[in-house]
Amino acid sequence: MAQEDVFKKLVAHCKEYGFVFQSSEIYDGLGAVYDYAQNGVELKNNIKKYWWDSMVLLHENVVGIDSAIFMHPTTWKASGHVDAFNDPLIDNKDSKKRYRADVLVEDLIQKFEEKINKEVTKAKKRFGEAFDEAQFRETNPRVLANQKKIDEVHTRFAKALNDNDLEDLRQIIVDYEIACPISGTKNWTDVRQFNLMFSTEMGSTADGAQKIYLRPETAQGIFVNYLNVQKTGRMKLPFGIAQIGKAFRNEIVARQFIFRMREFEQMEMQFFVRPGEEMKWFEYWKEARLRWHKSLGMGEEKYRYHDHEKLAHYANAATDIEFKMPFGFKEVEGIHSRTDFDLSQHQEFSGKKIQYFDPELNKSYVPYVVETSIGVDRMFLSIMAGAYNEEEVEGKDGKKETRVVLNLPPVLAPIKLAVMPLVKKDGLPEKARAIIDELKFDFNCQYDEKDSIGKRYRRQDAIGTPFCVTVDHQALEDDTVTIRYRDTMEQERVKIADLQGIIGKKVSMREAFKNL
Amino acid sequence: MAQEDVFKKLVAHCKEYGFVFQSSEIYDGLGAVYDYAQNGVELKNNIKKYWWDSMVLLHENVVGIDSAIFMHPTTWKASGHVDAFNDPLIDNKDSKKRYRADVLVEDLIQKFEEKINKEVTKAKKRFGEAFDEAQFRETNPRVLANQKKIDEVHTRFAKALNDNDLEDLRQIIVDYEIACPISGTKNWTDVRQFNLMFSTEMGSTADGAQKIYLRPETAQGIFVNYLNVQKTGRMKLPFGIAQIGKAFRNEIVARQFIFRMREFEQMEMQFFVRPGEEMKWFEYWKEARLRWHKSLGMGEEKYRYHDHEKLAHYANAATDIEFKMPFGFKEVEGIHSRTDFDLSQHQEFSGKKIQYFDPELNKSYVPYVVETSIGVDRMFLSIMAGAYNEEEVEGKDGKKETRVVLNLPPVLAPIKLAVMPLVKKDGLPEKARAIIDELKFDFNCQYDEKDSIGKRYRRQDAIGTPFCVTVDHQALEDDTVTIRYRDTMEQERVKIADLQGIIGKKVSMREAFKNL
Repeated sequence: MAQEDVFKKLVAHCKEYGFVFQSSEIYDGLGAVYDYAQNGVELKNNIKKYWWDSMVLLHENVVGIDSAIFMHPTTWKASGHVDAFNDPLIDNKDSKKRYRADVLVEDLIQKFEEKINKEVTKAKKRFGEAFDEAQFRETNPRVLANQKKIDEVHTRFAKALNDNDLEDLRQIIVDYEIACPISGTKNWTDVRQFNLMFSTEMGSTADGAQKIYLRPETAQGIFVNYLNVQKTGRMKLPFGIAQIGKAFRNEIVARQFIFRMREFEQMEMQFFVRPGEEMKWFEYWKEARLRWHKSLGMGEEKYRYHDHEKLAHYANAATDIEFKMPFGFKEVEGIHSRTDFDLSQHQEFSGKKIQYFDPELNKSYVPYVVETSIGVDRMFLSIMAGAYNEEEVEGKDGKKETRVVLNLPPVLAPIKLAVMPLVKKDGLPEKARAIIDELKFDFNCQYDEKDSIGKRYRRQDAIGTPFCVTVDHQALEDDTVTIRYRDTMEQERVKIADLQGIIGKKVSMREAFKNL
Repeated sequence: MAQEDVFKKLVAHCKEYGFVFQSSEIYDGLGAVYDYAQNGVELKNNIKKYWWDSMVLLHENVVGIDSAIFMHPTTWKASGHVDAFNDPLIDNKDSKKRYRADVLVEDLIQKFEEKINKEVTKAKKRFGEAFDEAQFRETNPRVLANQKKIDEVHTRFAKALNDNDLEDLRQIIVDYEIACPISGTKNWTDVRQFNLMFSTEMGSTADGAQKIYLRPETAQGIFVNYLNVQKTGRMKLPFGIAQIGKAFRNEIVARQFIFRMREFEQMEMQFFVRPGEEMKWFEYWKEARLRWHKSLGMGEEKYRYHDHEKLAHYANAATDIEFKMPFGFKEVEGIHSRTDFDLSQHQEFSGKKIQYFDPELNKSYVPYVVETSIGVDRMFLSIMAGAYNEEEVEGKDGKKETRVVLNLPPVLAPIKLAVMPLVKKDGLPEKARAIIDELKFDFNCQYDEKDSIGKRYRRQDAIGTPFCVTVDHQALEDDTVTIRYRDTMEQERVKIADLQGIIGKKVSMREAFKNL
């Protein structure tokens, strides 16, 4: 199945099985905003808890905070967001449609790449097994011509972005005759910068309200609280502050389902270290974070590092952890060595001394910061994409049929256990509910009595429930039930009294963290 | 100690011990916005989990969702918030200060009440034990004169609010000669309505961006998702949808610390029922919710119902659960019978049929709704206020000293266990850390080796840690430690291997839920 189709199916599955709904769907939706449905919210909460506990419970020197979305507007002057958190926009004068100039250029590059791919595919068909793709790419004149254009555009594009030269950026669009997809014309306005922060007005005085922003990242909420946490928590360097919370970016081009949304959630940890020791800690967290992802057992080959060559102005090292999404390897988490940029800026803008007295060195300094920053929604998408499988299995009457199963890590599964009476009578529903009444304090359980057992198994497979328990007449006699395992579809007869132990061992954080 | 002083102390304690910080404090704060600090975030998360699990895990027919803060703007037309979610504001022309007209009138009433109280206090002093307060209030001419004014203002005020008559409201301010506290003048503008929703602009098209709102309540996120959840979750009436999330109100007068904030968090559950059965379920949830609060063991006398006499336009019954705050009994949770108002409005505004087919009655209808709505921040404040105690205890040298202790419900305490080596040598720190390494998967533990054991106990008392374990030399020999209980300050020697069981039994949800 083509990866494109996999992605479409995944998106449909997310809606059909109660993971993700389009926001305000009854009003035909709101662009690039999504809601988490009854199963999605449980998966999302479990992801957040897995991260939080691994940061805060397992590290003696990491504590959490929960700062507000609203912050003093000077925060965003100090961080650089007011002046530099922009996208370059351009309007087509005929269609009156607005575009991101950089995305138009990226689309142009992609068009050239598609032309090359078309040539390659055509040649592959013609030459069959004898086809040498590398040689073809190096010699075919049409491929070479397109590759030359790609290189040219790339060079000009990188320079324009680097120099922040909006006229140059526009000139690429003009020179390569990029047309508006709506009007088809090349009648473009100038390129101008558009700030990605959402703003609103707080309070109401006769003199006017205060313009504030919805935070575009949670990190600054940690930095402005650094002093208070360090002092009241009596923290010693190195130490970290972890936070989970919403952030907002007014993306012009939001794409790929929940991968890039206008409202999204971050899990960030800022680790404060002695200047000069930041590279050691950067390496430490880089490794620790990849290990954390791999501990979920989605398959090690699905993750890779992507080290940044071009660094943001505040960073002296940066890497991404990428996950193999249906649309390619994409960033799920970033680890950044942010130097003392943020704390120094806040020191300057607030006029307050933001320093740490180091008793060993007997001096004060502005700490350096290593950040681990993960997108909850991207993480959610990566888990769903990695877990979604279609398997051929033998059906009831011996015919092959397709089983759609979410092989979610048990620790993250929304429902841990489904309990099903074989029939809706003879006291079996009551027996099933008695099992839930005992286990519901420990696990999210679901009662299901509708349809055949086979259908009920499939429904639970589709939402990733790792365990199904069937209550039959024998259960009434000897207090045993059948437990069925999602991944192997194997069944075994166990004592009801053993269920808590069997399931607990597989779904607990304690067990999952053993892989850390 | 006066309750006013208790409140001041509590606010100071919240900052000093890492529970709540003013937002963006280094920039001198942002009005009516607060951040949760390293201990506060744990308490807040525990409150949320206690609510979520009691709703979603313990009820077979309640599921959760997590809808976005951004919603389609028509949502707020349908709900009535665009047209009617207003505060009446008035400006003083000399000071240029803006006030809530209704608060000015409330303050006026309070002034008359204070005058009465002053008379009563004076008379009490003069007459001593013989004083009959009821008789005094009924006969003293000054008291009677002030009471008459209160009654007059009350009557006019209620009428003005009821008729939504802004001119009448202004006339009360004029007639009673209310002066601006800044300028001292009575030079007022007209009263005009001010909408409490924060708005922002989403997207950027050449035609202009879309005006959207930050949700002023989480409830509508449930209503617009009703159909999708009911269908994909195969839910049958009666069933509930629970949600925890941020909401925003541009309050002009925000007061009392985190009790009324501009950015706050709600825990809401909307329970969908058959029309005509709503009063039965209203009574059910009214009782269930009070039981939930009481299950935390803060003292039954601290809670009371306050039934609403005047109902919102969408409700046919409403009650508050109030908690005894240092500033009086105040609403922490509301239980409202909302009828089919919201779903019907969304049906009308969206043009989509929002109905439930009832197989027993064999007909379709718009469900009725009973809502339970709790403010996380108010709940947090109630728990802190109820837990904060100052006790006289015997100090080291036999002198009386004050112990400040947070008698938090163990299930909610930020740190469950502090582990302390008696001295910083002889392998005791290593032994203490080994205990944490075993228990940290189950409980939030804190290691503390600084200062005397007595001082360390006090620090843990101040953040509400229910258990302290001291590791002494004997621990190295026989694997036993001293466990010290926060509330009784009693100590006993126990096996290290028994710690998990002892603590787990006291801090687990399972145990706390037994009181439900």
